[in-house]
Amino acid sequence: MSRTATTTIRVEWGDCDPAGIVYYPNFFHWCDVATWNFFAASGLPLIELQKRYGIVGFPLLEASATFRVPSRPQDLLTIATSLGTLRRKTLELRHAFWRDGAVAS
Amino acid sequence: MSRTATTTIRVEWGDCDPAGIVYYPNFFHWCDVATWNFFAASGLPLIELQKRYGIVGFPLLEASATFRVPSRPQDLLTIATSLGTLRRKTLELRHAFWRDGAVAS
Amino acid sequence: MSRTATTTIRVEWGDCDPAGIVYYPNFFHWCDVATWNFFAASGLPLIELQKRYGIVGFPLLEASATFRVPSRPQDLLTIATSLGTLRRKTLELRHAFWRDGAVAS
Amino acid sequence: MSRTATTTIRVEWGDCDPAGIVYYPNFFHWCDVATWNFFAASGLPLIELQKRYGIVGFPLLEASATFRVPSRPQDLLTIATSLGTLRRKTLELRHAFWRDGAVAS
Repeated sequence: MSRTATTTIRVEWGDCDPAGIVYYPNFFHWCDVATWNFFAASGLPLIELQKRYGIVGFPLLEASATFRVPSRPQDLLTIATSLGTLRRKTLELRHAFWRDGAVAS
Repeated sequence: MSRTATTTIRVEWGDCDPAGIVYYPNFFHWCDVATWNFFAASGLPLIELQKRYGIVGFPLLEASATFRVPSRPQDLLTIATSLGTLRRKTLELRHAFWRDGAVAS
Repeated sequence: MSRTATTTIRVEWGDCDPAGIVYYPNFFHWCDVATWNFFAASGLPLIELQKRYGIVGFPLLEASATFRVPSRPQDLLTIATSLGTLRRKTLELRHAFWRDGAVAS
Repeated sequence: MSRTATTTIRVEWGDCDPAGIVYYPNFFHWCDVATWNFFAASGLPLIELQKRYGIVGFPLLEASATFRVPSRPQDLLTIATSLGTLRRKTLELRHAFWRDGAVAS
């Protein structure tokens, strides 16, 4: 299983709130996108996971995030997803967001 | 089957875009909410529809909307959903949005 | 400032993913909704906050959640929002989700 | 002003509903994304529009869509956005969705 996968996101107008910055629940949507990408990059794309293991969605146990730099429409965000702790039944993924070289969330 | 059902929505901060008004795809989300309410008000709640007819979601054929008054956070919107044309395989619903007495969309 | 505010959410069809349960980023959207409610219940509704302090949105510093019970369309969720640690420049809010008496997230 | 711009969208897990297909309001989100792309392709990117004309968001007057082929997670959709009727104060854009060669919406 690959250890890191990279996802690129462009912040869209509709992802932002009246303050003009990313409405933060969207960061969690992008974490989900990055999670599927991580499995695909590990040779386990969504369709394969469903066929082989009957997996429909990952039961999420915990999510946490720290927000540092606000992101605005048209910003390009890079998410580096890496494997954290791997236990018998659970798996921890870490998503690091970068915006033009700065840590975004 | 009842002919009109009413749904009330409060516009939230996260429903609005950097212009400070409702990001318009959300109106379609609320139309969907109002559709389920309409069926529930007709004695066909979601769970009943699934059990009795094995329905999972309605295949939508057409959607259209006209936007008149921009809506902002904390606005209360009322959606009046009524039955339009009923054909053998299709059913037309009309959703009228009102905001404090003014037509919103 | 009141110490606890309660928000009720009905899980809608469109809030759920192909596994039939709430797509988890929506929980964070509801936390945001509950946050505005908390301030309104404390006598500081959104419009007041904007006028008095020129506040547009709250800069979020950290978010975290633990997901216990999956929620499905038409579930009613109650969010109890309470004040955690209050510092000079930051304020911690805790959102507890309940579904028919069970802790949902 | 260029007459057609193309946007590519990958359908994500979280874009789909319990029926396993795209929750239709998301198509309107993608129309919005495609609209900004159209202006950028015409040499009028978002930031330029804001600076030059003080534009924050486009007031949408009408939206309509016909849904033909359901789309599922990991589908690649191509949106061809073209200029329809251009009037003094309004402008009509047409978004055609394609999925692997089939018309999606």
